[in-house]
Amino acid sequence: MIIILKPAATEEQRQHIIERIESLGLRPNVSVGVKRTVIGVIGPEDVVRTVPLEAFPGVESVVPILQPFKLVSREFKGEDTVVQVGNVRIGGQKVVVGAGPCAVENREMLLETASFVSKCGASLLRGGGFKPRTSPYSFQGLGEEALKYLAEAREKTGIPVVTELMDPRDISIVLKYADIVQIGMRNMSNFALLKEVGGIDKPVLLKRGNMSTIKEFLMSAEYIVSGGNFNVILCERGIRTFETATRNTQDLSAVPVIKQLSHLPIIVDPSHATGRRNLIEPISKAAIAVGADGLLLEVHPNPETAMSDGPQSLAPPQFAQLMKNLAPVARAVGREL
Amino acid sequence: MIIILKPAATEEQRQHIIERIESLGLRPNVSVGVKRTVIGVIGPEDVVRTVPLEAFPGVESVVPILQPFKLVSREFKGEDTVVQVGNVRIGGQKVVVGAGPCAVENREMLLETASFVSKCGASLLRGGGFKPRTSPYSFQGLGEEALKYLAEAREKTGIPVVTELMDPRDISIVLKYADIVQIGMRNMSNFALLKEVGGIDKPVLLKRGNMSTIKEFLMSAEYIVSGGNFNVILCERGIRTFETATRNTQDLSAVPVIKQLSHLPIIVDPSHATGRRNLIEPISKAAIAVGADGLLLEVHPNPETAMSDGPQSLAPPQFAQLMKNLAPVARAVGREL
Amino acid sequence: MIIILKPAATEEQRQHIIERIESLGLRPNVSVGVKRTVIGVIGPEDVVRTVPLEAFPGVESVVPILQPFKLVSREFKGEDTVVQVGNVRIGGQKVVVGAGPCAVENREMLLETASFVSKCGASLLRGGGFKPRTSPYSFQGLGEEALKYLAEAREKTGIPVVTELMDPRDISIVLKYADIVQIGMRNMSNFALLKEVGGIDKPVLLKRGNMSTIKEFLMSAEYIVSGGNFNVILCERGIRTFETATRNTQDLSAVPVIKQLSHLPIIVDPSHATGRRNLIEPISKAAIAVGADGLLLEVHPNPETAMSDGPQSLAPPQFAQLMKNLAPVARAVGREL
Amino acid sequence: MIIILKPAATEEQRQHIIERIESLGLRPNVSVGVKRTVIGVIGPEDVVRTVPLEAFPGVESVVPILQPFKLVSREFKGEDTVVQVGNVRIGGQKVVVGAGPCAVENREMLLETASFVSKCGASLLRGGGFKPRTSPYSFQGLGEEALKYLAEAREKTGIPVVTELMDPRDISIVLKYADIVQIGMRNMSNFALLKEVGGIDKPVLLKRGNMSTIKEFLMSAEYIVSGGNFNVILCERGIRTFETATRNTQDLSAVPVIKQLSHLPIIVDPSHATGRRNLIEPISKAAIAVGADGLLLEVHPNPETAMSDGPQSLAPPQFAQLMKNLAPVARAVGREL
Repeated sequence: MIIILKPAATEEQRQHIIERIESLGLRPNVSVGVKRTVIGVIGPEDVVRTVPLEAFPGVESVVPILQPFKLVSREFKGEDTVVQVGNVRIGGQKVVVGAGPCAVENREMLLETASFVSKCGASLLRGGGFKPRTSPYSFQGLGEEALKYLAEAREKTGIPVVTELMDPRDISIVLKYADIVQIGMRNMSNFALLKEVGGIDKPVLLKRGNMSTIKEFLMSAEYIVSGGNFNVILCERGIRTFETATRNTQDLSAVPVIKQLSHLPIIVDPSHATGRRNLIEPISKAAIAVGADGLLLEVHPNPETAMSDGPQSLAPPQFAQLMKNLAPVARAVGREL
Repeated sequence: MIIILKPAATEEQRQHIIERIESLGLRPNVSVGVKRTVIGVIGPEDVVRTVPLEAFPGVESVVPILQPFKLVSREFKGEDTVVQVGNVRIGGQKVVVGAGPCAVENREMLLETASFVSKCGASLLRGGGFKPRTSPYSFQGLGEEALKYLAEAREKTGIPVVTELMDPRDISIVLKYADIVQIGMRNMSNFALLKEVGGIDKPVLLKRGNMSTIKEFLMSAEYIVSGGNFNVILCERGIRTFETATRNTQDLSAVPVIKQLSHLPIIVDPSHATGRRNLIEPISKAAIAVGADGLLLEVHPNPETAMSDGPQSLAPPQFAQLMKNLAPVARAVGREL
Repeated sequence: MIIILKPAATEEQRQHIIERIESLGLRPNVSVGVKRTVIGVIGPEDVVRTVPLEAFPGVESVVPILQPFKLVSREFKGEDTVVQVGNVRIGGQKVVVGAGPCAVENREMLLETASFVSKCGASLLRGGGFKPRTSPYSFQGLGEEALKYLAEAREKTGIPVVTELMDPRDISIVLKYADIVQIGMRNMSNFALLKEVGGIDKPVLLKRGNMSTIKEFLMSAEYIVSGGNFNVILCERGIRTFETATRNTQDLSAVPVIKQLSHLPIIVDPSHATGRRNLIEPISKAAIAVGADGLLLEVHPNPETAMSDGPQSLAPPQFAQLMKNLAPVARAVGREL
Repeated sequence: MIIILKPAATEEQRQHIIERIESLGLRPNVSVGVKRTVIGVIGPEDVVRTVPLEAFPGVESVVPILQPFKLVSREFKGEDTVVQVGNVRIGGQKVVVGAGPCAVENREMLLETASFVSKCGASLLRGGGFKPRTSPYSFQGLGEEALKYLAEAREKTGIPVVTELMDPRDISIVLKYADIVQIGMRNMSNFALLKEVGGIDKPVLLKRGNMSTIKEFLMSAEYIVSGGNFNVILCERGIRTFETATRNTQDLSAVPVIKQLSHLPIIVDPSHATGRRNLIEPISKAAIAVGADGLLLEVHPNPETAMSDGPQSLAPPQFAQLMKNLAPVARAVGREL
């Protein structure tokens, strides 16, 4: 932590700050420059963070030196984390594709989609039973019924299922059926929910909030990991910007940035980021090229009748073609699909 | 709802869309222009919204005509809603000030602050027992203990208390002590929580997410109101932009925009929006001038020792001075403080 | 300047950096912490800035200590700058209102508007002859003809005129007629133009780019002032955010932030920020309450026929009413209109 | 153009709007719905755009149907534009790489870099003589001297050179030496400059403003093309968002979005978008995978001594390695490097 004093800071104010630092068992390093005095604070940054130094008279600004996350950082663990679910390894050599409908609408459409995407090479089945919808008047999902269909689809296809948890009170229901528990982008900073999934023994797929920085994203992962659950898969799904041509702006730079900062695997969701079916293929290719460990894609047997996210869902033939076109890109960056 | 077709849309595609519209009991109005064909859909917009028209072949874009919110809109209710809590009326002639510490740290600091702010003219006491913190290692609040102190402070000062609910499982505890239940900005789209407070009989203070449009903000209010609870107070507390000079950018235009769209009262929180104590006074004045129904301010007996939000908390003398300086501005716009 | 080293930085890398610092005649202050080594660089920050320290191996990040602007800063000049144009003082006790049409469309409309706004108390007449339009097919302004009408309007009303310069080649034409030269928001970082107006002896009204931070805004002012022209009036006219309810988001916090950082006067343009006529009054009040030194408002004799910015232009009766309603707010914050 | 009326719009207001539409020779299509009346305006959108319909009483909002750009649109020209400069074709099968230093610092460094990058397979040499710098105290470029070195480098390497034009008064100097004239991101909406390069017979490389929408970007291209110069190369170089981990956020979705809207070629500049050398490789791969026609990269013989953009410049060995790693990605998407 570095404290920059105002040019007009008095000797008294400076002394007051130094005393406060020393009272915490920390060591101040005062450096008097031509225009500013700077105080470096040496010692555990945790302790320093408990003091609101900006609130002290004479302080111009405070600059933290360390990242606020620990257990999810590369400094804590150098090698990549690989999350294993059944036979599927997320974060390894193979680029993993999760596919399925936005919402599970009924048994038939789910089983049909599941069978199709697994045949095309998808390793995970996605589908929502509890749906966060911006309108209280929109379809809110089938709840536990949807989860039963997901479990049935897993039996039939052999691929693990990922589904969203929105309410901590639903955790036992979701754990009964899901292989991976998804925390949606609107709940990225729902700390009650994060603490809840920090205590489970199933992997968590954590989506980035669409207005959250990479640092905040990793802090939310830290909530889960600090609860004891190290099996966290990050998912970049677009951030909100001024551009309206796409639903959100897919921040592909976040993938290599996170790879440098953290050991956790990271996948990309182009369906929610772009909101447009005709952008899924180029962005999926780019996501693999940039180093993502996987993709999360919305596939619907008939997007025209989809109860949510129709415009961004791939029809089955489009998904089949996409999988074929992605394979060479994966190979070009030394991976496989 | 208006559907704009692609220039290359075929007669078949157009017919397919028209049939779908008619099958829903709606009436299509086809208008063939020089460059584009446009189909207006006449009938209840609710019904139209259930069909993902963008997913139909030949469609270029779809333009909604009506706002997605209903019960919170001015069209539904022309006159202003006034939320009454004890003797306090929010949304009326008087500009209401809620003040208190970010977190309740102990009994003494709370009672001292409560007594001071109520003497200075604050009508509401704010203070958190359950604190959403970006770091799992930060102070998370005293929980129910804090709420007991808030209730005690209410007894002593006679002013109602507002405190945050983060987890639907805590609702009975919070309702036991709080007069107004706050939904924090990170939970503005936590629909499970919104549904929960839609069913209570106490007013809800709903903070705007820092990543949320005005439309989404009103849709979150709609969740609560559609559950039967019309006593919703909106709070603009800054949005995230590229500017880093302030913690967030206070969007004061949101106040008159919301006044035009909705009948609900709206207050402003300059402490969280700016994050800087020396901006509280000018922004508070501007908030009153722009038409806000109230202010929410952080006050701490000693900001230097605050366990959260020290840099943006006012010390008691600053708060006293502020209240004096705000009164003439309220009078200048035909209100009182 | 503070250099934070990577945890894995080698002794060699550290030495290499220290040598580079010393070779510039600067003094390094090395502080070895538990997790990071930090090097403070003592000496003129100008010199340090010429070295791309982030490009050195072993460097994690570089933190500047001083603001990059100098002549426009409060540290350079403590008291407020008041820009005087004729009898008008911008930055003094009186809140100054500049009003007029977006574009000068013809002689009659300009003279009529000028006469009206000056009667209502406007101190400056605004109007464009050279118009920056997003479409090459839109009306581009009357050019010098417009400027002649502006000069005529000044003769008749006695109030100074402000008009935009878009092209450095037009400077002699603009100087011939204008009292204040406006640099529009799209040209805030047109450094060729900034250098040009740095050398003139008339005041410059510099609009904030809608994509520009406060720091960049002040750096653009620094360009002008460093050329010798200290008569710069800043103008906040909204920034681009994700919110689409208003054309831009008026960043009123920028006013007190800039007042703290700089001695230059700052005015607010609610017409361009909001883009909506029915928001002009509340935002104008808020702008005065927050501490702005003036307002810039679009007024058109008949907004329905305006060749640009009709939707945000006030009709004359609205402007007259607005001026009446603003006066009490100015008095409430110790100023006059 | 579609006009949505307020629910409270009177018959008189409606009639007034209809008359105005008819007076322009356009045809109104009135559609009375349950909640809103909608007026479609049939006829050339150009004519409609000249009327500020939002300014009419009774109007709630106005929705344009057509994109505002014409000559640059796919509707105007279906097949891809290929810009040819010497032997280099931009927008064809081959992905084109432009490389070189940010600023030309002296003859030696330029010739050395040019020779190196052309040997590695770069097709264009980039380098600035006129430099837009945020600080007036920073190195502003060598001016014409730099352009002479660029011309010399072209003689020696045989590859065309691209360099920035900042001031319309420098156009004859720049045209004397450059093969492609660059308009930098800060000048994307400098319409005086755009008009100037609309009249030249050399290709223009137009960079996207970092706070400009895709629509605005294409409108700036329309300025150039409407002046008669169809040889425009677009360049996405990152947009400004709330995320600070990268200098800007590279908006790779813009590439396929623009490919759908326009026939112009588009390249990507990861150096300015990310600002970080260690992100250049993954983002370059992603740019090719997403469909970009080329890359613009900063290469400096010794980034530690670079007078600008050192932290994002590649050292020669890094560039050589990058070119090798990009080739397989180009092949994977059916192109070559």
